[in-house]
Amino acid sequence: MPKKLLDTIQFPVDLRKLSKENLPQLAKELREFIINIVAVKEGHLGASLGVIELTIALHYVFNTPEDKLVWDVGHQAYGHKILTGRKDLFHTNRSLHGISGFPKISESEYDTFGTGHSSTAISATLGMAIASQLNGNQSRQHIAVVGDASIASGMAFEALNHAGVTNTNILVILNDNAIGIDPSVGALKAYFTKVNLNGAPETDNIFEALNFKYSGPVDGHDLKKLTSELEKLKHIEGPKLLHVITKKGKGLRQAEENQVTYHAPGKFNAETGDLLPKSNEVLPPKFQDVFGQTIVELAIDNVKIIGITPAMPSGSSLRYMMDSFPERAFDVGIAEQHAVTFAAGLATQGYIVFCNIYSTFLQRAYDQVIHDVCLQKLPVIFCLDRAGLVGEDGPTHHGIFDIAYLRCIPEIIIFAPRNEVELRNIMFTAQLGLPGPIAIRYPRGRGRMLDWQQPFSKINIGEGTPLKEGSKIAILTLGTMSTNAMEAIQNTSASEKIGCFDMRFVKPLDEKLLHTIFRKYKTIITVEDGVISGGFGSSISEFASRNNFINTLVILGVPDRFPEHGSVAELQELSGISSEKIQQTLEQYL
Amino acid sequence: MPKKLLDTIQFPVDLRKLSKENLPQLAKELREFIINIVAVKEGHLGASLGVIELTIALHYVFNTPEDKLVWDVGHQAYGHKILTGRKDLFHTNRSLHGISGFPKISESEYDTFGTGHSSTAISATLGMAIASQLNGNQSRQHIAVVGDASIASGMAFEALNHAGVTNTNILVILNDNAIGIDPSVGALKAYFTKVNLNGAPETDNIFEALNFKYSGPVDGHDLKKLTSELEKLKHIEGPKLLHVITKKGKGLRQAEENQVTYHAPGKFNAETGDLLPKSNEVLPPKFQDVFGQTIVELAIDNVKIIGITPAMPSGSSLRYMMDSFPERAFDVGIAEQHAVTFAAGLATQGYIVFCNIYSTFLQRAYDQVIHDVCLQKLPVIFCLDRAGLVGEDGPTHHGIFDIAYLRCIPEIIIFAPRNEVELRNIMFTAQLGLPGPIAIRYPRGRGRMLDWQQPFSKINIGEGTPLKEGSKIAILTLGTMSTNAMEAIQNTSASEKIGCFDMRFVKPLDEKLLHTIFRKYKTIITVEDGVISGGFGSSISEFASRNNFINTLVILGVPDRFPEHGSVAELQELSGISSEKIQQTLEQYL
Repeated sequence: MPKKLLDTIQFPVDLRKLSKENLPQLAKELREFIINIVAVKEGHLGASLGVIELTIALHYVFNTPEDKLVWDVGHQAYGHKILTGRKDLFHTNRSLHGISGFPKISESEYDTFGTGHSSTAISATLGMAIASQLNGNQSRQHIAVVGDASIASGMAFEALNHAGVTNTNILVILNDNAIGIDPSVGALKAYFTKVNLNGAPETDNIFEALNFKYSGPVDGHDLKKLTSELEKLKHIEGPKLLHVITKKGKGLRQAEENQVTYHAPGKFNAETGDLLPKSNEVLPPKFQDVFGQTIVELAIDNVKIIGITPAMPSGSSLRYMMDSFPERAFDVGIAEQHAVTFAAGLATQGYIVFCNIYSTFLQRAYDQVIHDVCLQKLPVIFCLDRAGLVGEDGPTHHGIFDIAYLRCIPEIIIFAPRNEVELRNIMFTAQLGLPGPIAIRYPRGRGRMLDWQQPFSKINIGEGTPLKEGSKIAILTLGTMSTNAMEAIQNTSASEKIGCFDMRFVKPLDEKLLHTIFRKYKTIITVEDGVISGGFGSSISEFASRNNFINTLVILGVPDRFPEHGSVAELQELSGISSEKIQQTLEQYL
Repeated sequence: MPKKLLDTIQFPVDLRKLSKENLPQLAKELREFIINIVAVKEGHLGASLGVIELTIALHYVFNTPEDKLVWDVGHQAYGHKILTGRKDLFHTNRSLHGISGFPKISESEYDTFGTGHSSTAISATLGMAIASQLNGNQSRQHIAVVGDASIASGMAFEALNHAGVTNTNILVILNDNAIGIDPSVGALKAYFTKVNLNGAPETDNIFEALNFKYSGPVDGHDLKKLTSELEKLKHIEGPKLLHVITKKGKGLRQAEENQVTYHAPGKFNAETGDLLPKSNEVLPPKFQDVFGQTIVELAIDNVKIIGITPAMPSGSSLRYMMDSFPERAFDVGIAEQHAVTFAAGLATQGYIVFCNIYSTFLQRAYDQVIHDVCLQKLPVIFCLDRAGLVGEDGPTHHGIFDIAYLRCIPEIIIFAPRNEVELRNIMFTAQLGLPGPIAIRYPRGRGRMLDWQQPFSKINIGEGTPLKEGSKIAILTLGTMSTNAMEAIQNTSASEKIGCFDMRFVKPLDEKLLHTIFRKYKTIITVEDGVISGGFGSSISEFASRNNFINTLVILGVPDRFPEHGSVAELQELSGISSEKIQQTLEQYL
């Protein structure tokens, strides 16, 4: 059996020894390599398959890592990782202590910038390009690979607007596959489609208006055309944009045909491409589906309800509402800032807006939450999906800051459901009408209840719930941390001494309940799946100071460092908030 | 003396009774009215003078408040306020309990959306337009007035990209005066200039690419053309953009000629337009000028130093560096997100980047601070100007959240200088090289030292400073709050019992010093000019909990509601952090 080309490559320097004629064969092998591993180990599949040829062409033509290459979002960088020294580690992708699923500065000199959130690449690349200019380095190239969904985000536009008035060697590759995780939306997408259909560059297109030299569109799966176009662009000075047309999932039929599903398909059969059959076991629902199905239920009766997602209809399950009430559900694209202020505008006219944004992505709209919603006292309902530790996606995606960054804002209510029914009921409560905004934070993945579709009941704002009485130690939990805490209590030697209280609201705090607890229990332990600094436990600490309580207060949560990637269970263990770790803390204070 | 036209107008309904021929006379009177009051009461002058005709035309042609009108940023809305019921209150503009200097929902039904920060108007207006569509209201118009500097910000682009695929009655007025507070920058500005020079709409311009019907450019001071163009647009369906050319400061010669100075000129002679002569008294410098002059001093010796401002070269005084080292100082426009990640990109290449952003505007780049700087552990130096209560600009501009929203992020150092020398020294220290990012927060306006240009000395990271020893109560301060605290102590009956400690670093806390203080003093009072929830005092409370200290802890800071506008002294008094209020607290605990 002849040695594979891929076997000869550890670094781009090896790749560059190949003749151009061999590159398509390498592309085939690289695709197979990724498919075989991701089929078993899971991960982001479609995006990386779509840029195999582009990845090879870039490392073949450019002198990486001397030339600087930045992958926007970064979930498409598997081929890049494999060709830049991490082939033999690729099977550890996204596992605890394994390589990251995204580019990461500390992992490789080829990962010039850490990515994860979208639309950062042009800004970072421009910084590198200006640095080269200041260093007097005329020949270094700086390349940002940006998807068509990502380039429509405001931040990317800001960077283009700046880059266009520089004379740096910056090349933006527009990787146009008409899809992000879900299909792209918006006027720019329509514009790209028009450009593609015309088949030739327009004379006065939107990028040329911003002073970029535009070329393309070129077939992103044609290695000959790609390499020759890139070689040409290497010798053109100033800001350039190459419009490349690719197909997400390229080379695996099912991935091409079901691009949303195969974005991150879970385990599948590497030979046939088929997803592994699902178990027949009836599982509790994902919180996402509870959200999606509940908003539809509520929207049937309440015609004022609107749903908004910035580019996550599938991930958030707002898709259900988009299917049922297309005129009242909006996917605004990767545009969190706009999503929030658009929600605010609707709220000024009496609409009840559920704005569903992943906790980590709401960071993108922080000012809008403060300035356009809370200050204006508009009753926007924020559903913060994927709050807490998210697992394998790692530090770029953990939703661990929301409690701290939201609770400092006046007017907002902050709630975390401990189970599916609580999520349903708070959604029901919120759409009845609140005086101001509310943030509802819930985790990624499945809950624990099968009988979750119970009749709605109203939640009293600011009211916590005793889960178990005790005598010596009280655990105060938030959201699904109650499950860990109750497990810990059950496994403890003196469980009768330990009380457990689901505080539910970070804001307003249930001060009445807290007074009772602080008077009765000597030791208070708070548990949250967010950062300790400024979080829920911190607010309990403020309460204690304000009221001169001198109880022992122990705050459990994510310590003051970025948690890495790994399974949620592993990361909870490392953070000290798994049931085992809570139990250890309990034993210590009993 | 004939009655003035303006005297006949309280609301737009009165305006609409005038004949078109009378509108230029009204414009003249409105301009004079604004000039006469702002000359004495201070405020934003240039922007409002520039849109006098546009304001009249909009309220004349459109049926406000039934039609929805949103002023982006809002500092140009003085004419709007005067024509919509607030003429007789306009002399209270920006004063405590007076009308706000910005549109404000609670102030008038004509203020459809509260603004202050830039680039929010299109999103909010689109929300209103979609609401009308859902309500079946076909005839209502929705107008967003956006400046050319503001429309280049990413958020505005996101909104345009969404609006372009709707068929709503939305009209964006591009108020193109080629300046924000400072002259506009970027590729889009260059593009507008080209469009203006050509004098006619291009067939395939950037807004048409986004599916807007483009018209203009029209002379924004020609009431006849403006009203007829607006009347025409009223009958055109779908998203529309009208490009209007105006001159900032129009009608006051000095304001037209010195647009940056007359943005908010302070007091001036209403007849001549001349600024009132400055007193000859030698005053302590503004913190802004300490920043501006110090970065130049440092940049002379350290060639790796870069300065970045998002559209505030004058306000931040980065102008000094732009004049001295134009190739190393960047005004990137109203693009805080890009500013931060651009800084990160430069930092990856070993540059020492001072990224100067107003505290309130850093909210716009929160995700970039977390994801692109702190997570990547890049030593970007954030200078957070206008931290704390800013005074007359009010709740949209107070820099009161930064401590809470930054201290939850791992890796970042947070420092507040208590005087000019400390600001200089921390800048000196930071550019020597730090392992990660630092945020330096300082207030708007003047410090208290005349002899501030002292030789640099290095600050030990994480080290607080005792200002005064005592026995019973310790006050822990941050930044310039030490001045208030020390004054309070001097005026107290038993000042010898009170210690005062400038903690300087919110992060890392000087735990050694804190242990000493908590052991010695029974009562601890913290003082900060930021929100109490999650702020500096909160971190001290966490420290106390963590170490089982049972001292009495009193946290002084901004309570959990949005502070209104007023003088800084008035707002500090209302927040309980003025020297008088601190003194009262001291007496209570003595």
